Amino acid sequence: MSIANNDPASDSILLESCQKLDTASLSDALDSLNIAGGIAGLNQQVSGTRCAGFAYTVLYEPVYEQRGFKNAANYIDDVPANSVIVSSNPERADCTTWGDILTYVAIKKKIRGTLIDGAARDIDTVQRLNYPLFSRTRFMQSAKNRVQLKATQIPIEISGVTVSPGDLVVCDSSGCLVIPRDRAEQVIQRAQAVEQTEHKIIDSINRGASLEEARELHRYDQPWLSTQEKLAES
Amino acid sequence: MSIANNDPASDSILLESCQKLDTASLSDALDSLNIAGGIAGLNQQVSGTRCAGFAYTVLYEPVYEQRGFKNAANYIDDVPANSVIVSSNPERADCTTWGDILTYVAIKKKIRGTLIDGAARDIDTVQRLNYPLFSRTRFMQSAKNRVQLKATQIPIEISGVTVSPGDLVVCDSSGCLVIPRDRAEQVIQRAQAVEQTEHKIIDSINRGASLEEARELHRYDQPWLSTQEKLAES
Amino acid sequence: MSIANNDPASDSILLESCQKLDTASLSDALDSLNIAGGIAGLNQQVSGTRCAGFAYTVLYEPVYEQRGFKNAANYIDDVPANSVIVSSNPERADCTTWGDILTYVAIKKKIRGTLIDGAARDIDTVQRLNYPLFSRTRFMQSAKNRVQLKATQIPIEISGVTVSPGDLVVCDSSGCLVIPRDRAEQVIQRAQAVEQTEHKIIDSINRGASLEEARELHRYDQPWLSTQEKLAES
Repeated sequence: MSIANNDPASDSILLESCQKLDTASLSDALDSLNIAGGIAGLNQQVSGTRCAGFAYTVLYEPVYEQRGFKNAANYIDDVPANSVIVSSNPERADCTTWGDILTYVAIKKKIRGTLIDGAARDIDTVQRLNYPLFSRTRFMQSAKNRVQLKATQIPIEISGVTVSPGDLVVCDSSGCLVIPRDRAEQVIQRAQAVEQTEHKIIDSINRGASLEEARELHRYDQPWLSTQEKLAES
Repeated sequence: MSIANNDPASDSILLESCQKLDTASLSDALDSLNIAGGIAGLNQQVSGTRCAGFAYTVLYEPVYEQRGFKNAANYIDDVPANSVIVSSNPERADCTTWGDILTYVAIKKKIRGTLIDGAARDIDTVQRLNYPLFSRTRFMQSAKNRVQLKATQIPIEISGVTVSPGDLVVCDSSGCLVIPRDRAEQVIQRAQAVEQTEHKIIDSINRGASLEEARELHRYDQPWLSTQEKLAES
Repeated sequence: MSIANNDPASDSILLESCQKLDTASLSDALDSLNIAGGIAGLNQQVSGTRCAGFAYTVLYEPVYEQRGFKNAANYIDDVPANSVIVSSNPERADCTTWGDILTYVAIKKKIRGTLIDGAARDIDTVQRLNYPLFSRTRFMQSAKNRVQLKATQIPIEISGVTVSPGDLVVCDSSGCLVIPRDRAEQVIQRAQAVEQTEHKIIDSINRGASLEEARELHRYDQPWLSTQEKLAES
């Protein structure tokens, strides 16, 4: 599926397109537009999984004073289908904000995946359910009485990059990135052109070209140009 | 298998019970008793493996002076079956204290698994033998002439948590934890209740409850309570 | 295949021998000759893969000034078969110097594997192609306009170890190491003796010996000695 230049696209078309695009191509498209989107330091916890969806943001804060039990994770009841949960538990590797129960709920609600700036637990179960989970680390200690929910659906910052509610989030084996919602059509269109350029380069190499020849032939200097744009320029 | 309240349980019943419990549930039980047990920063080196056993502790120290060869790892001849070896090589990522020969010996001796605060090597072989190995990192350089055995079967500290000889050690994909031997019955009993509570919550969710409803219904505020205790309180 | 003492061996015999040797045995042989070779901190990105080859070194530097597009990775057109690419992008985890196109080219050119001191991307594709890739981390952001090629085929330093063009590089699940080209015959010969010693120790253990007995019997104090040398000494 190709998104026509500057056409506003429906959410479902955006998602379907992103599902087919690697973070590498999307990142090259973001670079070409001078948008910072790559979120460093988060690891794919279930090999072979990827996800794309709209950011539902969650922010935790330390518990400084014990004031009775808080159900830190019930926010998930409010998360719509096609979301990617983006949860920040800044600088806390000592307790987890994701585990098996949340994974069951997420799958039931057609949530696309979860990105945790912090630790996750029950990795065996998450792997068995093949759920796309990306986190900084793994640890089994509960968030209970360690951190508490501070806010949901506000802009949060992870590894220096801001994620706002509704932004497109895409994660795969190379890492996680965020695409501002109002730039999504343009980014996806360019990423699709990048992938076409790369496929042509690989085809040329398989037919015997050197990498230098293949890249020059297919305009690797500006791989996001569409075929028409490349023809118009040359 | 369920451990009755406050009954002293035999070692084999403790082990059999722990084999079936996730570190997540055991950690929640430890939290409910204000016992610090989670050991951060150690990674599962063989996907899908877990272990539970009694700590056999091993401490290394740097070699400051060369005084001929020392067989650093022959301690393993003294390790009894059903142990988990807990080996500390503090702040040394530049040499390994675990490899293929020790793995063969460990399996032969029915040692349950190994936890290395440091580096391990021969990971291909350890993976082929499906042996539960958890370590901070991987590296192939030998301990020989770099570190030497300082002591065995003394209390050691890893990631701020003390492990004493005979403590119960449980490791899975979410990490490693230690349970003081004299609290083991109580911790296991509460962890079994935690798992029952969680299964009920997941059942309720699968029957259509929200997470908030399911957690309130099944007393997620104190998931370690037995069914009788929950009934008595409500 | 065994390399006779002090015979100069052809490149293809060296490579064939290294393919069968673990980094652990090679590292023990390097230790016995007081050669520092283990390169810490690089991770096997494709489970089950290993490589051995002659170092082709590549050094990147930051782009301080934008002076038009540079094809940072066309150096690969000059890399001969049986190389391992050793690429240094020092202290830059924010951009990648390896991805899918380079992997396709490398396989086509019979390059044996790649070691990246930095980040790599397109890990899904690299895993699908089962290409031996070792890197410090994963990230999807392109090197383009972030770093540029500074030099190829010069000595470079990774994790405190110098790799020179033409050195033998061997990588497996325990990590990466480098063997100076002019010591390769001797190192390989000793590593072969180490592996024979270890096999004998494991055999003795399987026949009921303690580790101490097995190690003493097979001279684990100097495992790199050949059978004749051991007999001559005893």
